[in-house]
Amino acid sequence: METIRLPRVMQEMAIREKRAGRTMGFVPTMGALHDGHLSLVKTARSENDLVAVSLFVNPTQFSAGEDFDRYPRAVSEDLEKLSSSGLADFVFLPETQNIYPPDFSTRVEVEGLSERMCGAFRPGHFQGVATIVLKLLNIIQPARAYFGQKDYQQSVIIEKMVKDLNLPLEVAVCPTVREADGLAMSSRNAYLSPGERNAAPALYRALQAGAAALAEGRRDAGGLRALMEGVLRAEPLFSAVDYISAFDAGTLEELENIDKNTVLLAGAARIGTTRLIDNLLVNNLK
Amino acid sequence: METIRLPRVMQEMAIREKRAGRTMGFVPTMGALHDGHLSLVKTARSENDLVAVSLFVNPTQFSAGEDFDRYPRAVSEDLEKLSSSGLADFVFLPETQNIYPPDFSTRVEVEGLSERMCGAFRPGHFQGVATIVLKLLNIIQPARAYFGQKDYQQSVIIEKMVKDLNLPLEVAVCPTVREADGLAMSSRNAYLSPGERNAAPALYRALQAGAAALAEGRRDAGGLRALMEGVLRAEPLFSAVDYISAFDAGTLEELENIDKNTVLLAGAARIGTTRLIDNLLVNNLK
Repeated sequence: METIRLPRVMQEMAIREKRAGRTMGFVPTMGALHDGHLSLVKTARSENDLVAVSLFVNPTQFSAGEDFDRYPRAVSEDLEKLSSSGLADFVFLPETQNIYPPDFSTRVEVEGLSERMCGAFRPGHFQGVATIVLKLLNIIQPARAYFGQKDYQQSVIIEKMVKDLNLPLEVAVCPTVREADGLAMSSRNAYLSPGERNAAPALYRALQAGAAALAEGRRDAGGLRALMEGVLRAEPLFSAVDYISAFDAGTLEELENIDKNTVLLAGAARIGTTRLIDNLLVNNLK
Repeated sequence: METIRLPRVMQEMAIREKRAGRTMGFVPTMGALHDGHLSLVKTARSENDLVAVSLFVNPTQFSAGEDFDRYPRAVSEDLEKLSSSGLADFVFLPETQNIYPPDFSTRVEVEGLSERMCGAFRPGHFQGVATIVLKLLNIIQPARAYFGQKDYQQSVIIEKMVKDLNLPLEVAVCPTVREADGLAMSSRNAYLSPGERNAAPALYRALQAGAAALAEGRRDAGGLRALMEGVLRAEPLFSAVDYISAFDAGTLEELENIDKNTVLLAGAARIGTTRLIDNLLVNNLK
């Protein structure tokens, strides 16, 4: 496993491998790796000749007042996990000033999709995500890039950017990996106190309750929202609910009438100072 | 020479050639080819194994009320010119709905540079330019892309986007090609009536007068502006002057004090309903 810090060196290496006819699978991460990340790396390993993982806490996707400063950093543990897994060929570990030199001024935005759901609560977040992912894709030149379904909106935005900008690669969205009690794995779970950690699976339970109601034939979006929010708010440690609702799985528009075959149930809520998100795709509704 | 209409087919061809180790030189154009375009194609030919030229009148770089509808289109003459020149291997001639499908929603912007000079008079223009050029670069995968210095601001913005987004290619900016009387070649010159055509070189004469004053040691930007505008307005057919001034050649900021070694003199003005632009880079001022 080779650790590379300079974008130019990483890109030269990637282009050399591509010219040699080897395919690269790429897993972009902000580090603090958990089993959700490692499942992406495993899938990348099984589908490509080579695997690259990036570790970069991207400042531009944090809004003012968010948790950029305290976001978990665990570079040596991350390198150890990747190295001992034997799954990665390259780890790209750039320094911020080499990704965003002082005169950096280009931004990429996927309009519409970026303003919905979490976008309404995190201004500029998905612009930051789209721009860094585009840069990383250009540096690493993968045949396939892997994202977790837990960040569903992110994956839809990246898929749209890749299509709109004619990038010659495949975007793969892999299943959310959960703890035994259902909590979606996330680097931010490290923020939770023991009591908060114990309460946190209520978000997943709320989504499951929504999915069960859909399966039983319930189709009124307002009632579904109230049902899910009720389950979530039954856990008093959830101090604020940004949203928990049913969305069009393609456009991410909130549904007023549930008349699709596939529906995205998704929620974002705060527990203490930690913001958690989760989602479930419910299929075969027609 | 092969003419390709579908982005997917063009991209597959480009990737195949790249894999085979052949370099592609790319000249993006909006068609209505003149000798300025052909000089770019010649340079591309001399520096690459293969040459691709695109012909696409990009709707998103025209502001509301601009000349998109009447912009000159001359596809069969363009194909004939390229074919008889023997300089191009591929002509990419996409249809608008294949470049911008109905759900297209991604935009790329180079902030700062895009708002100055022409950007102040053509809102959204350089966002449209950056987005289409990025798409074309991703489709055609060139080793080198060629732009004319006549569109100086465009070339600076493209260079910045390529650097900021880590695109693995070289941007080449080639000298402006002029008519015998100094008028910079432009597809829009076709709009000019015989009287307007006769008056049009006043823009270049104004810039030359500015360059001569700089060479004689003049350093007050206000006086330089007045001098150039005077020469331009001496030609009464120039009905409106958007700007004619001295700019920082890198940041495109208008100069109040001329204390650089290199200065960009640039102007944009209307003659009848036609908007003309031109520029001169003046070096070795220190």
